[in-house]
Amino acid sequence: MTDFFKGMSPVKYEGPESENDYAFRHYNPDEIVMGKRLEDHLRFSVAYWHSFAWQGGDPFGGQTFERPWFGDSLDLAKMKADVAFEMFDILDVPFFCFHDADIRPEGKDFRENTDNLKAVVDYIEGKMEGSKAKLLWGTANLFTHRRYMSGAATNPDPEVFAFAAATVKTCIDATKQLNGQNYVLWGGREGYETLLNTDLKKERQQAGRFLTMVVDYAKKIGFDGTILIEPKPQEPSKHQYDYDVATVYGFLKEFGLENDVKLNLEQGHAILAGHSFEHELALAGSMGLLGSIDMNRNDYQSGWDTDQFPNNVPEVALAYYEVLKAGGFSTGGTNFDAKLRRQSLDPEDLILGHVGAMDVCAAGLKAAARMLEDGKLEAARDARYAGWEGSDLLSSDLGAIADRVLAEGINPAPRSGRQERLENLVNRYL
Amino acid sequence: MTDFFKGMSPVKYEGPESENDYAFRHYNPDEIVMGKRLEDHLRFSVAYWHSFAWQGGDPFGGQTFERPWFGDSLDLAKMKADVAFEMFDILDVPFFCFHDADIRPEGKDFRENTDNLKAVVDYIEGKMEGSKAKLLWGTANLFTHRRYMSGAATNPDPEVFAFAAATVKTCIDATKQLNGQNYVLWGGREGYETLLNTDLKKERQQAGRFLTMVVDYAKKIGFDGTILIEPKPQEPSKHQYDYDVATVYGFLKEFGLENDVKLNLEQGHAILAGHSFEHELALAGSMGLLGSIDMNRNDYQSGWDTDQFPNNVPEVALAYYEVLKAGGFSTGGTNFDAKLRRQSLDPEDLILGHVGAMDVCAAGLKAAARMLEDGKLEAARDARYAGWEGSDLLSSDLGAIADRVLAEGINPAPRSGRQERLENLVNRYL
Amino acid sequence: MTDFFKGMSPVKYEGPESENDYAFRHYNPDEIVMGKRLEDHLRFSVAYWHSFAWQGGDPFGGQTFERPWFGDSLDLAKMKADVAFEMFDILDVPFFCFHDADIRPEGKDFRENTDNLKAVVDYIEGKMEGSKAKLLWGTANLFTHRRYMSGAATNPDPEVFAFAAATVKTCIDATKQLNGQNYVLWGGREGYETLLNTDLKKERQQAGRFLTMVVDYAKKIGFDGTILIEPKPQEPSKHQYDYDVATVYGFLKEFGLENDVKLNLEQGHAILAGHSFEHELALAGSMGLLGSIDMNRNDYQSGWDTDQFPNNVPEVALAYYEVLKAGGFSTGGTNFDAKLRRQSLDPEDLILGHVGAMDVCAAGLKAAARMLEDGKLEAARDARYAGWEGSDLLSSDLGAIADRVLAEGINPAPRSGRQERLENLVNRYL
Amino acid sequence: MTDFFKGMSPVKYEGPESENDYAFRHYNPDEIVMGKRLEDHLRFSVAYWHSFAWQGGDPFGGQTFERPWFGDSLDLAKMKADVAFEMFDILDVPFFCFHDADIRPEGKDFRENTDNLKAVVDYIEGKMEGSKAKLLWGTANLFTHRRYMSGAATNPDPEVFAFAAATVKTCIDATKQLNGQNYVLWGGREGYETLLNTDLKKERQQAGRFLTMVVDYAKKIGFDGTILIEPKPQEPSKHQYDYDVATVYGFLKEFGLENDVKLNLEQGHAILAGHSFEHELALAGSMGLLGSIDMNRNDYQSGWDTDQFPNNVPEVALAYYEVLKAGGFSTGGTNFDAKLRRQSLDPEDLILGHVGAMDVCAAGLKAAARMLEDGKLEAARDARYAGWEGSDLLSSDLGAIADRVLAEGINPAPRSGRQERLENLVNRYL
Repeated sequence: MTDFFKGMSPVKYEGPESENDYAFRHYNPDEIVMGKRLEDHLRFSVAYWHSFAWQGGDPFGGQTFERPWFGDSLDLAKMKADVAFEMFDILDVPFFCFHDADIRPEGKDFRENTDNLKAVVDYIEGKMEGSKAKLLWGTANLFTHRRYMSGAATNPDPEVFAFAAATVKTCIDATKQLNGQNYVLWGGREGYETLLNTDLKKERQQAGRFLTMVVDYAKKIGFDGTILIEPKPQEPSKHQYDYDVATVYGFLKEFGLENDVKLNLEQGHAILAGHSFEHELALAGSMGLLGSIDMNRNDYQSGWDTDQFPNNVPEVALAYYEVLKAGGFSTGGTNFDAKLRRQSLDPEDLILGHVGAMDVCAAGLKAAARMLEDGKLEAARDARYAGWEGSDLLSSDLGAIADRVLAEGINPAPRSGRQERLENLVNRYL
Repeated sequence: MTDFFKGMSPVKYEGPESENDYAFRHYNPDEIVMGKRLEDHLRFSVAYWHSFAWQGGDPFGGQTFERPWFGDSLDLAKMKADVAFEMFDILDVPFFCFHDADIRPEGKDFRENTDNLKAVVDYIEGKMEGSKAKLLWGTANLFTHRRYMSGAATNPDPEVFAFAAATVKTCIDATKQLNGQNYVLWGGREGYETLLNTDLKKERQQAGRFLTMVVDYAKKIGFDGTILIEPKPQEPSKHQYDYDVATVYGFLKEFGLENDVKLNLEQGHAILAGHSFEHELALAGSMGLLGSIDMNRNDYQSGWDTDQFPNNVPEVALAYYEVLKAGGFSTGGTNFDAKLRRQSLDPEDLILGHVGAMDVCAAGLKAAARMLEDGKLEAARDARYAGWEGSDLLSSDLGAIADRVLAEGINPAPRSGRQERLENLVNRYL
Repeated sequence: MTDFFKGMSPVKYEGPESENDYAFRHYNPDEIVMGKRLEDHLRFSVAYWHSFAWQGGDPFGGQTFERPWFGDSLDLAKMKADVAFEMFDILDVPFFCFHDADIRPEGKDFRENTDNLKAVVDYIEGKMEGSKAKLLWGTANLFTHRRYMSGAATNPDPEVFAFAAATVKTCIDATKQLNGQNYVLWGGREGYETLLNTDLKKERQQAGRFLTMVVDYAKKIGFDGTILIEPKPQEPSKHQYDYDVATVYGFLKEFGLENDVKLNLEQGHAILAGHSFEHELALAGSMGLLGSIDMNRNDYQSGWDTDQFPNNVPEVALAYYEVLKAGGFSTGGTNFDAKLRRQSLDPEDLILGHVGAMDVCAAGLKAAARMLEDGKLEAARDARYAGWEGSDLLSSDLGAIADRVLAEGINPAPRSGRQERLENLVNRYL
Repeated sequence: MTDFFKGMSPVKYEGPESENDYAFRHYNPDEIVMGKRLEDHLRFSVAYWHSFAWQGGDPFGGQTFERPWFGDSLDLAKMKADVAFEMFDILDVPFFCFHDADIRPEGKDFRENTDNLKAVVDYIEGKMEGSKAKLLWGTANLFTHRRYMSGAATNPDPEVFAFAAATVKTCIDATKQLNGQNYVLWGGREGYETLLNTDLKKERQQAGRFLTMVVDYAKKIGFDGTILIEPKPQEPSKHQYDYDVATVYGFLKEFGLENDVKLNLEQGHAILAGHSFEHELALAGSMGLLGSIDMNRNDYQSGWDTDQFPNNVPEVALAYYEVLKAGGFSTGGTNFDAKLRRQSLDPEDLILGHVGAMDVCAAGLKAAARMLEDGKLEAARDARYAGWEGSDLLSSDLGAIADRVLAEGINPAPRSGRQERLENLVNRYL
């Protein structure tokens, strides 16, 4: 046991009336909701990246956090893993996830990176034996190092493509070794800073080929998790190719990958793209692409990625409503790709950020389940389209339809969309 | 000759030093640029909608314009056409475009709409015989009438779908009768106000089928113009399905229409979607989807569609650079889907808005042609990707690449992207 | 009794478990919260403008609502008033508010406007005798008519200034006659479309003098209500002078009016200005300027003023927290400057929009009261600044402070801001 | 001479036709514009911060630049100064500016910081003797170090206030020693991350008192430069108190400092606040607060501070038009608070970024001068307000005005605002 969380006991469910900061008020893992344990619905995951690797910097200020494991050595990487697993235990989360760069020391070249990664993955494999926490997903950090400043798969330099491809290979290997349930690609540098030096077509071809290689390699080695793309419109790049769900859908269709890849969706990224989170979820659901979620909000006023823990139950409920409508998670889960505010310096803050977020998600999912089970929302939606039942209009053609409109004097009267009534209805379940 | 533009002579090219408000300083239709007349490059078009049908209202105020042709009768519609053609002549524009609702009186049902449309189209056909102006595109207004408040093709009520389909049929007929070079669909109400009452999958199926019917009907009647979709992210709807180029690409792929439909792109809509205009143009170009443009800017500060005449030459030059790189217009052109500010009450304002815009576009296109002919920009772009020439990396796989990176010790050093140099270079041609 | 709400009974409080769409689940007017009836805390008001005068148009579509009182005659104006008071009774709201143009037929000149206003105000005065509803505020519509297209008080034409000033005089008279508790100025056209034709300094002088005249006239006739300015950053104008709380504060200081005028703050306008609603409320509270609120939200994704009924309890709770911290309303109240979605055509929608909103506000205010009464939030805030107690630092000077920092070796360590803990705490009261 | 810019000669004016990347095409320092040398109009300044201290990081990636002077020692600080002065010479800029933290090694406490600053300032004083470059302004970095994470002047901890005050004292001393013409305050951390832990009133009092101390100290030591505040709405903080010109005006009025402090305005910050740059300049001009400018643009699509070199001449021209209308700079100048894109790694990029920007500014200012000298824009503006000449309306009152409107039947007709004509006119000078 490290000293970092000294004195902190596992967080337990105490019910809505609890005034204990370190207890769950809504998250009872064993509560049965729609026939399934709450833990198995939500499948919470802690992100190594923000919780253990981020140092508190922003574009105008440096490190604010002081963690004993900061630094680039294997010993420190192991201490980091020790603390991480202590937190997984305190929070009783069933999953975690990481980038290679989060868990291993940075090497001077690919060989060193690979060796470092292998060493830490072995160590983590050992830790997982004594812990409930499983790996939700692994991923490669192809954006922090300066070699990736002009992209990884979409870099104008084929050597960078090669370095990135080789790195992803090692990360899929690591994910398989740790029985990860998904492998994620977030293309933060796959985009551009200026169109003036960018060949969109060439870079899209590179990206399509890269993803195909990933899918092929996963199959080849028998990795049976889901390959996930995480859309985001911009930041760090001015424009990111995986802009939003609709964009990634077109990309997958272009390269024939729509049956091999699903999506990891994040509220913050949805907002940056001009969408609500429920829009992105519903759209992915309607396309059969909904894989997993990053449940961290963006400040609506801020134009950059604030990665905050969720705290608005009504918003979260609408998100889980779409998740449940799409059938819930299979390999996916609820990852908190959320960072503490950089003023939140203390170990307790790290625990409290997760406790609050888990509770907000639990309350949201339970409200969503009530909405769905009650059925009034879906009944109202179905009723609105009822006129299409039995209609053969969609198999007709423009000429025949025009004849019919003339002949039958079709002159439809608009009907209320009842938005306010439905919004009131939603509030009834919250 | 009506009284409206009384005393106004045709606007002529007088060269850059002219101080005449009613002369072109850059737009010399007969100037040869890259082997083609400037008029044939730019293919300017006046939009009936904003120039002759819009009354100056905004969400907080009513009509400010007082035009003698406002009102709903066939006589007034003819007067409107008379004035329109007078303006086409004054400006010497080679094209115009319209929605059905712009040119005909509103009828009480489909039959009356159809009869009214036919009568005005016949009248316009006569006017076209005495004018240079040709029809760039026709389109159906499926958004203003209250029957479309919940969508046209994507309406929950099949009768609205039918009414819309029948209306589009008459508009394609009209476009064909007038030898229109394109037919445009802008789905302003194809979207939603709230997800709570919306079935995304059903509505997308309706939209896909609707567009297929349009393509089929055009072929059937021998309409050989281009079918164009105009993307826009939102407003009037909270979310519009044809959000941007990438989204429409996915939609076309889903319904197998990517070879039958191209895009009509507007600067203002690009901005509302979080993109630069050149991004949307370059992306469409890279996908072979670039059809035509609406050259009207959006105020960067305003979150709604301001539809202003273009006035920033550097911006316009970057747009035409992408158009020229994509091979220039074939059936498409430069339409001004631009409205006067609602305080610009006078006939002169209507002329001056267009004169300024045409000049800005001419200056922009000529600068773009200089950039392209000089070749430095493209040479720099090509040089950046030169490492890929002869590379077989894209036909490799992850495992082999990883081996190679290890074996060869590949450890790429980043190279400057030279953005500032390229931006300086662009300014040299302006 | 008109036919409009035929069959609708007064909406009653039935408690949180009620499944009756037409009942309050949280708004029990007689419930005592922090020693005061809930009705007296919230002071709900219905806006004539959106509920009875707006026709459902948007920039791309016309009227969707069909109300029997639409039209420009005194009889129709009276029918509108009859329906309005029926709705006030059904909802049991204690207040309403209006622009002159909402309640009277439009006249051809100032004389007719004045006569029309007087006639309807007399009629409303009669109706108020038989109703609980009082006037929260009156105001003049100085933005819809085309005469105001370039501003009212800030118009370049002094005749428009005069027309506006005369109109405001009649509206203050009307407000006084009806015992209005406030008089509001919203300067929707007091701003500009382009700086190129605008003299900021001149227009600010005109605005300052106009407001001074309003304050003087109110005093002169013994109107003892509060004069309120309603900030908004833009739309309809590109830039509106009363941008936000901070801007109006500077304006009031410039003209020495900071003790004579308070603010009417709207959530939607706060969002358009890049602020949270609680920011604007807290800032106004800290300046002693908080007067009244318009409790209608803006869609976070839409860049225009969507004026929706509130539906997110946590957001509303944070707003009322600031209202309560500032001492609650005196002459002000909670006005719903909210419009139905234009697809919400039915009389029931009008009732349900308000019922849901009133319930959301009641739930929000009660949560805010719990936060305040519990005291933990304020205790945490006070503790954060505790170091300043007894400090004489603010009366020192730079030189002395530098000496002291050197002498005492002051080298402060940062302390956690505990944002996540406080956000969790807020959720405990919801 | 260091090696950094080895082989680079001073950049010279070669005229518009030059194809030399390393020559000015528009910036001829000795050209006389409106009776003054161009150099004396523009008063260009290089920012130490971005050009020599920034390492190329962003929130998702680390350092990309490799400069021989990076590191924390006095020797490296001197090498940095050597390179900086070499660049000032190459560019022939008359000014530079810095934060204390840009030029000195970071010390472990205030004493070390002070000593380090003194040592480097002495060194720079020496370098200035052999250089044309003068100090435009000095400032204190009160935002990067973790001690300032919760604010400097507005920190809840008085010890941080003290540390900040002491630091500013040393920076004013340094600025005076180097004959700086202004002293700037940018309060990047003076704002909040969450209202929940913030006391707006207390923090505003602290900020007001801090600024007063600065003004007093500057007077006391005989610093006769201008004290400048630089507004910005947000980033790094969620909300920054010095939001925009209007906000700072109110703040200065609250503390009686409006005659002692002026503004340093930046295009990027204007855009983030929802304003055009010309708006902020014109507003400051109309309030007598225009001091100096940071001429670096923000990407319109990106919601964070991109600090790019200006490259759009029409935009820049409108900015300088407001500067010239306000009388031009006295102690202020044109500072490039602009950073290279993080992919622009090479020494040449640093030169080219500045060369392009200086040329764009020169072209813009010359266009602005033509607009102003021609007088047509101002004549049109004046004509619009001509009705106010001789009017006594502003000294009247509401009652008298209403009487007059009635008596005289005042019923003003709107007049065209001529926006398109004026926009065309502007393009004529470009």
